[in-house]
Amino acid sequence: MTAEATNQISSEDFHERMHANHMYGLWELASQMTPHPQPKMVPYLWKGALFDSIIEQSGEVVPIGNERRALQLFNPGLDGRWATTNSLLGAVQMLLPGETARAHRHTPTAIRFIMEGTGAYTAVDGERVYMKPGDLVLTPSWAWHDHGNETNERVVWFDGLDLPLIQSLEAMFFQLYDVPMVPLTRPHNDSEHLHGHAAIAPTWVKEKPLSSPLLIYSWDAAYGALMSMQDHDGDPFEGIKLEYQHPQTGGPVLPTMACYIQLIRAGERLKAHRQTGSAVYYVERGNGETIIDGVKYVWGKGDVMVMPSWAVREHANTSKSEDAILFSISDVPVLEKLGLHKTEGYEENGGHQQVTSTFQPESV
Amino acid sequence: MTAEATNQISSEDFHERMHANHMYGLWELASQMTPHPQPKMVPYLWKGALFDSIIEQSGEVVPIGNERRALQLFNPGLDGRWATTNSLLGAVQMLLPGETARAHRHTPTAIRFIMEGTGAYTAVDGERVYMKPGDLVLTPSWAWHDHGNETNERVVWFDGLDLPLIQSLEAMFFQLYDVPMVPLTRPHNDSEHLHGHAAIAPTWVKEKPLSSPLLIYSWDAAYGALMSMQDHDGDPFEGIKLEYQHPQTGGPVLPTMACYIQLIRAGERLKAHRQTGSAVYYVERGNGETIIDGVKYVWGKGDVMVMPSWAVREHANTSKSEDAILFSISDVPVLEKLGLHKTEGYEENGGHQQVTSTFQPESV
Amino acid sequence: MTAEATNQISSEDFHERMHANHMYGLWELASQMTPHPQPKMVPYLWKGALFDSIIEQSGEVVPIGNERRALQLFNPGLDGRWATTNSLLGAVQMLLPGETARAHRHTPTAIRFIMEGTGAYTAVDGERVYMKPGDLVLTPSWAWHDHGNETNERVVWFDGLDLPLIQSLEAMFFQLYDVPMVPLTRPHNDSEHLHGHAAIAPTWVKEKPLSSPLLIYSWDAAYGALMSMQDHDGDPFEGIKLEYQHPQTGGPVLPTMACYIQLIRAGERLKAHRQTGSAVYYVERGNGETIIDGVKYVWGKGDVMVMPSWAVREHANTSKSEDAILFSISDVPVLEKLGLHKTEGYEENGGHQQVTSTFQPESV
Amino acid sequence: MTAEATNQISSEDFHERMHANHMYGLWELASQMTPHPQPKMVPYLWKGALFDSIIEQSGEVVPIGNERRALQLFNPGLDGRWATTNSLLGAVQMLLPGETARAHRHTPTAIRFIMEGTGAYTAVDGERVYMKPGDLVLTPSWAWHDHGNETNERVVWFDGLDLPLIQSLEAMFFQLYDVPMVPLTRPHNDSEHLHGHAAIAPTWVKEKPLSSPLLIYSWDAAYGALMSMQDHDGDPFEGIKLEYQHPQTGGPVLPTMACYIQLIRAGERLKAHRQTGSAVYYVERGNGETIIDGVKYVWGKGDVMVMPSWAVREHANTSKSEDAILFSISDVPVLEKLGLHKTEGYEENGGHQQVTSTFQPESV
Repeated sequence: MTAEATNQISSEDFHERMHANHMYGLWELASQMTPHPQPKMVPYLWKGALFDSIIEQSGEVVPIGNERRALQLFNPGLDGRWATTNSLLGAVQMLLPGETARAHRHTPTAIRFIMEGTGAYTAVDGERVYMKPGDLVLTPSWAWHDHGNETNERVVWFDGLDLPLIQSLEAMFFQLYDVPMVPLTRPHNDSEHLHGHAAIAPTWVKEKPLSSPLLIYSWDAAYGALMSMQDHDGDPFEGIKLEYQHPQTGGPVLPTMACYIQLIRAGERLKAHRQTGSAVYYVERGNGETIIDGVKYVWGKGDVMVMPSWAVREHANTSKSEDAILFSISDVPVLEKLGLHKTEGYEENGGHQQVTSTFQPESV
Repeated sequence: MTAEATNQISSEDFHERMHANHMYGLWELASQMTPHPQPKMVPYLWKGALFDSIIEQSGEVVPIGNERRALQLFNPGLDGRWATTNSLLGAVQMLLPGETARAHRHTPTAIRFIMEGTGAYTAVDGERVYMKPGDLVLTPSWAWHDHGNETNERVVWFDGLDLPLIQSLEAMFFQLYDVPMVPLTRPHNDSEHLHGHAAIAPTWVKEKPLSSPLLIYSWDAAYGALMSMQDHDGDPFEGIKLEYQHPQTGGPVLPTMACYIQLIRAGERLKAHRQTGSAVYYVERGNGETIIDGVKYVWGKGDVMVMPSWAVREHANTSKSEDAILFSISDVPVLEKLGLHKTEGYEENGGHQQVTSTFQPESV
Repeated sequence: MTAEATNQISSEDFHERMHANHMYGLWELASQMTPHPQPKMVPYLWKGALFDSIIEQSGEVVPIGNERRALQLFNPGLDGRWATTNSLLGAVQMLLPGETARAHRHTPTAIRFIMEGTGAYTAVDGERVYMKPGDLVLTPSWAWHDHGNETNERVVWFDGLDLPLIQSLEAMFFQLYDVPMVPLTRPHNDSEHLHGHAAIAPTWVKEKPLSSPLLIYSWDAAYGALMSMQDHDGDPFEGIKLEYQHPQTGGPVLPTMACYIQLIRAGERLKAHRQTGSAVYYVERGNGETIIDGVKYVWGKGDVMVMPSWAVREHANTSKSEDAILFSISDVPVLEKLGLHKTEGYEENGGHQQVTSTFQPESV
Repeated sequence: MTAEATNQISSEDFHERMHANHMYGLWELASQMTPHPQPKMVPYLWKGALFDSIIEQSGEVVPIGNERRALQLFNPGLDGRWATTNSLLGAVQMLLPGETARAHRHTPTAIRFIMEGTGAYTAVDGERVYMKPGDLVLTPSWAWHDHGNETNERVVWFDGLDLPLIQSLEAMFFQLYDVPMVPLTRPHNDSEHLHGHAAIAPTWVKEKPLSSPLLIYSWDAAYGALMSMQDHDGDPFEGIKLEYQHPQTGGPVLPTMACYIQLIRAGERLKAHRQTGSAVYYVERGNGETIIDGVKYVWGKGDVMVMPSWAVREHANTSKSEDAILFSISDVPVLEKLGLHKTEGYEENGGHQQVTSTFQPESV
């Protein structure tokens, strides 16, 4: 190719030719190299009362035998993507009395945190765990699972999944089991009998799966742990925040998702900070507020809140006398494994943000 | 809420109300739970001759002093997203004689595989490495780097980045250094002096970073390793495929991206298989073909090819006498760390696919 | 050196010269390369009644203010070495009412398993843990510790140390604290508040020491865990044997020593096997027997038994109605880390040994 | 037991009774809790000329067909124990032309560092490696091995084993192969073809054994690495000291034994320090001295030197113009895994010891 020849192409023609061949110049894209994360997802808050009302209606409109009444929370910033944050999905699900779900499995990993109702079960790989409010239940990636409500009352839980992450990694697999229920091969709550003890473990269990072999983390244990540490200083930004653990490794319960339970004591206002990684919170009890990038989100029992990556966050319990407890899921384990977890304390203004406005959910 | 009240809502009104509150029913979304990955990205092939021509033109249209002549390869299936696969970005970059690039850093991690030209340098955190064809050079996440071409000839390399992954994890950070070049604080090629030896290492270096401390992997060493193993059977699906390693841990060179060099011997036809994870290939030498989900992609020296997640792939060297060598990058380390790496041999038809068509690049 | 010269030396002179220069011929030593371990240590059993009697006497002969009444168990095969097995030391210690021990630390790591008495304390690095029968207490390597009995009754515990191992590795360090008690810097039983929960952990504790940060493992939790698993098959050789765990890693509580609690159910006779590594057992309750290389050791509550490396062992509960529970310490973590842990089932005779004799302790 | 009864025993009778029952009082043993390690092993030095002479004689006195001419170095402080340090054994072995050794395996792990002669082989698990001076060869724990000298000249090497450690851990196993040579199942030097490259590795080899899969570390590579780093500062106490690595993990070559090659540059005097762990050195080239606890050990090419745990050591090259190179083996990996590795710089006198005497080997 001679200099003469190439001289003849105009910039416009050159770009047209380049694009026609599925190439773009770095000079056309540099603005996407942002100085820090600028997520399209936004903070958001769904009120517990809204769930109550819509769930109740869903029981009428979507009767048993058809589909599961699971309300998927869509982040308003993500253009209709099935996602509450870039990596995580939160949902609220109601089981009607007598309802069962057909056994299936998928690569997205899931947790359940029981909001209401005692006595429904989740079965995972041949073991049934019976659940009560505050219990955390795991359904690891690719494990067969089904569930049912043998009681006379509705059961409601919060679902957390890493479905958006699995989709963006192009690793989605899904399969129905050939009969409605996986045969039971282990006693009820067997994983709790084996692995639910404080630092003592069976020597004859040799396998150490990537996901926790303990399928249910009881509310009594979680609440007891919070109470036993309530006189500690805890973390200046997050207070008495405890992580549910893989009992064999001490790592996160699931390779893509961490679960936390967090006590914010009466009157406590924590300091502001930010970190990479997104989260979805469920308010187990109490009243408080979280200031996210200057906007105040007021929360109470039953609410669900979204936290984007790198947003400055600051939690407070606004009651003078009652504890607040937050359950949350987060994709921090993914960022840590990939060397992408960054944290930063908020240094200005004594570590507390100026509030510029208060969030009003557009509840209808 | 009474039964009467809830009975009055129509399914349409119910759905409208739910959507207005940023919720969707699981029953509206179930089709997104696909039985296996169904990536929007497609296989694709860019011919080396096309790069030659467009790069040459870019030198005219985008002169030195303005921007870097780096051609970003856009996957035709990804709707204009800055991405060659869902996680990876491939590009071809030309340095003109005398050109330098201003020092900067970013969380996306990058590698360079030198295609043409001897004597340009990349500087990383105060160390300059000088490069020649076939060399692999690392610029780890968040490391300061700049580069330059002090020779009289153009230098061309293949760039590989995990930029789409970092964007989807909302972990993008970018920063310019305050002067054009980071001061040199270590001798040229110092990382090679310290870490470029076969299994022997300095005892006084205590730090073990997540990314390899060895910044350049020389072509002579890579080619020598391929030759020393050429009489082995190798992998039935991938042949004599070697992974560049982190010298202190034996793991992948970068936490989000693995690099490979792969020999397909004259006349060799490997068996078909698939795996989760995507890849971008650069043909270092030779002629051959890869059948991807039944479509034949014919490749030769200088071509770049995209491999989607879970596509059935089958490589062959179509020359009777010449070796073929493929360099590639892959996001498999991410999938492995998260427990999402799945592989499957292709069992039908003796392990070989029926060819249904041959890919024709739409080169203009 | 010419052949003539060397020819002149006799074999005797040659050997004499070699030995004078601190060399021996391999041909003189080959018999020490034994086909399998042939330990000099022997199995042994001390009866609980003997401890009672000698401890009581020690309280008279060695009064408070002088020395600690800790009876060190010497393996009869080890020629007066301060060792119960090649790596481990067992002892029985009594604290008189009002007794304290001066604060000190040492590289040998130690555990205590409480045999009798409620309310004495051990203080480790500024934290006091109060103890009751069945509790396991850790004093990690090089941690400051002291103890005291503020009650009106004697307290008796079983001590386990890795002192012989530390001595053979030439890594013995010992230091007295400059005042009798290390100042208390943490609330009583604080490690239990932080780390004593079932798989839930404080996020603000970042340090992960090699030894467990949980200092006390309560009897109630250990016994509860045994009971919850009593219907499992357990291990064919060891039954319902549980390992106390490092709560942050799931590994052994101490880097050189594992601790176990083991239920042998009424009437249960386990199968014979052997493994490298030695152990010391304390009978917490029940009556049974262990056949070691064909010799029967009959044990009951309060007895202490030694198990040599590679000895064939076979446990049975000889009661038809009462459970037996064994506490034990072992050096298996050392052998595992070094790739030296080997195990072998006993295949002959349906997995059960012929009894050739019954051990009679030479108690005086 | 009444107070009257126990009062009647005398201290003498009490001790006699206690000892008869294989118990000792802690008060009788406390002096063994030393403030720091006080090893019985002593520093020692064997001169290379002595090996030459005794080896030559051994060829006469112990002819081929009987036994292997391997001179075992006995530490003068260890009372005739088969040990050069508490954990390690050094030996010097000569192979006569035509000699072979019968295939066998043992749990003690061994290395060979070739002193003299080119072309003998060691076969490990079906692979023969051919050796030349300066090469390091591994025979991992429990791997079948044999060796032979097919040349016309004697071959001499330095043997290093962890035999004393294995004996003290009661983990000694030994077995003869049923025919003299293990059948060759892999090409000669195959482990080098697979694993002997600088940070590039076969993807089809999935197994990661605890011991390095690379069986030979060539002198050319080790010397080249030393030379490439000779302008670095290195370690203030140990200079340009490199560790041979497990190529798949970056860890020590063997789980119980590390191997090092160390350059002390002409005129260089390093600073004094000490650490837990013992070592045996072989002087590959040069002249220098090591001051150990104040005693000067003068060394030259071919000498072997012992370093006890916790001894203060200080190396110097006493030549103004020639490099010195030391090869050494150490049990530091054992101490590190068990949390027992401690180091301490020597702070007095500018970091250099006063020399109180000079060691004179008692060579005969």
